[in-house]
Amino acid sequence: MPTEERTRQAGTLFLIPTLLGEASPDSSLPPLLGRAIGRLTHFLVEDEKNARAFIRVVAPHVNPRELVLERLDEHTPPSDIPRLMKPLQAGIDMGVLSDAGCPAVADPGSLVVRRAHELGIPVRPLVGPCSMLLGLMASGLSGQRWRFVGYLPVDDAERANAIKRLEHEVSRLGETQIVMETPYRNQKLLDDLLRHCTPETRLCVASAVTTPAELIQSHTIEEWRKLGRSLPKTPTVFLLGR
Amino acid sequence: MPTEERTRQAGTLFLIPTLLGEASPDSSLPPLLGRAIGRLTHFLVEDEKNARAFIRVVAPHVNPRELVLERLDEHTPPSDIPRLMKPLQAGIDMGVLSDAGCPAVADPGSLVVRRAHELGIPVRPLVGPCSMLLGLMASGLSGQRWRFVGYLPVDDAERANAIKRLEHEVSRLGETQIVMETPYRNQKLLDDLLRHCTPETRLCVASAVTTPAELIQSHTIEEWRKLGRSLPKTPTVFLLGR
Repeated sequence: MPTEERTRQAGTLFLIPTLLGEASPDSSLPPLLGRAIGRLTHFLVEDEKNARAFIRVVAPHVNPRELVLERLDEHTPPSDIPRLMKPLQAGIDMGVLSDAGCPAVADPGSLVVRRAHELGIPVRPLVGPCSMLLGLMASGLSGQRWRFVGYLPVDDAERANAIKRLEHEVSRLGETQIVMETPYRNQKLLDDLLRHCTPETRLCVASAVTTPAELIQSHTIEEWRKLGRSLPKTPTVFLLGR
Repeated sequence: MPTEERTRQAGTLFLIPTLLGEASPDSSLPPLLGRAIGRLTHFLVEDEKNARAFIRVVAPHVNPRELVLERLDEHTPPSDIPRLMKPLQAGIDMGVLSDAGCPAVADPGSLVVRRAHELGIPVRPLVGPCSMLLGLMASGLSGQRWRFVGYLPVDDAERANAIKRLEHEVSRLGETQIVMETPYRNQKLLDDLLRHCTPETRLCVASAVTTPAELIQSHTIEEWRKLGRSLPKTPTVFLLGR
């Protein structure tokens, strides 16, 4: 029974959230997270430099020379996943670190998690910050139904259509729609939402959540148009709802 | 300018996640959360007994007799919201506590948050556990697009239709669909999903996450049918995807 043998001796795959920007660890991370990192040597990371800086902050006693970091990002070919997971199959616990927030949420981590389930490797998600979830909590929009759609198209006509479709789901289902944007395009997305949405739709813009620069603004489109706000170039989620 | 006056002296509305079941605070809550609770006296809570027990655990130095707890649940009439928020307008900070997990996510907290934005009251979401998000991270299903739909209909025919619609969104968009269920109906929902979904769809069942009884299982429908698992009667989220 080779599968059961692998299962019995396999390591555990820890999914470890990281800080959002300049947040303090005390504000965002449970004590268990630092302890879990302190016991691990093997990590799959989106960016090695950021990952080392994060580990240094939350588990300062770890010897950086003992760490084995492998890159897992959007350029990782699926054919490379079995090699990356060899330590788990040899009984070594591993951690997956996103660049910011929760691994396997809007990043390539889920490929490794899926393979772990196929191999019977235990998967353990740890608690930490998620900008979409914190934005949803703080939005005042419906928390009964919600949907994360990632980035909107860049092309103007496609983007206008995508915004219309999101608004349609808001009015059809009362469902809150969560969108991401690259920070330097925040203002453009706000302008496009104000141009294409109907006045009574509500828009929450949640920037730099959990950091000292946190800024959460929630108004109807009509109110936003009157306020004429300019947005910071910080990581931001946009939420449409009613 | 009455609105600006209110804004200048208003308290802050803290959105405070609570533990999921028998989880330890160390595993789920950042140190800031206990400190924030320790500084608050006024809370809006789903259940007073559970809220007092939670506050006792995370902020043991708080004098329970100094706490002012008001109920905010699915029976709270919207007309009662202005009264509940009076302390905020008088400059007193308040906390919103869900019964389990994040307030304003699948609970009535968003009514208060919306009103806070209308009144210019600052809203501050704190980091903590969310069963849907932890289930998503651990599922191995796509984290690029996902949707929380709440509970499925109880009626058999309506439920079968709802499941078909969820599967349609999985195949159309590759979007992960997240569903909740009342714990004593977990097995019935699993049976219904196995009956109505196609063999290649993937189903993750995440039970009692963050607690010692955590159980995360992710397989294709075909594999689930072969395994014939029985589910515990613990809080569980179900995720369909590919």
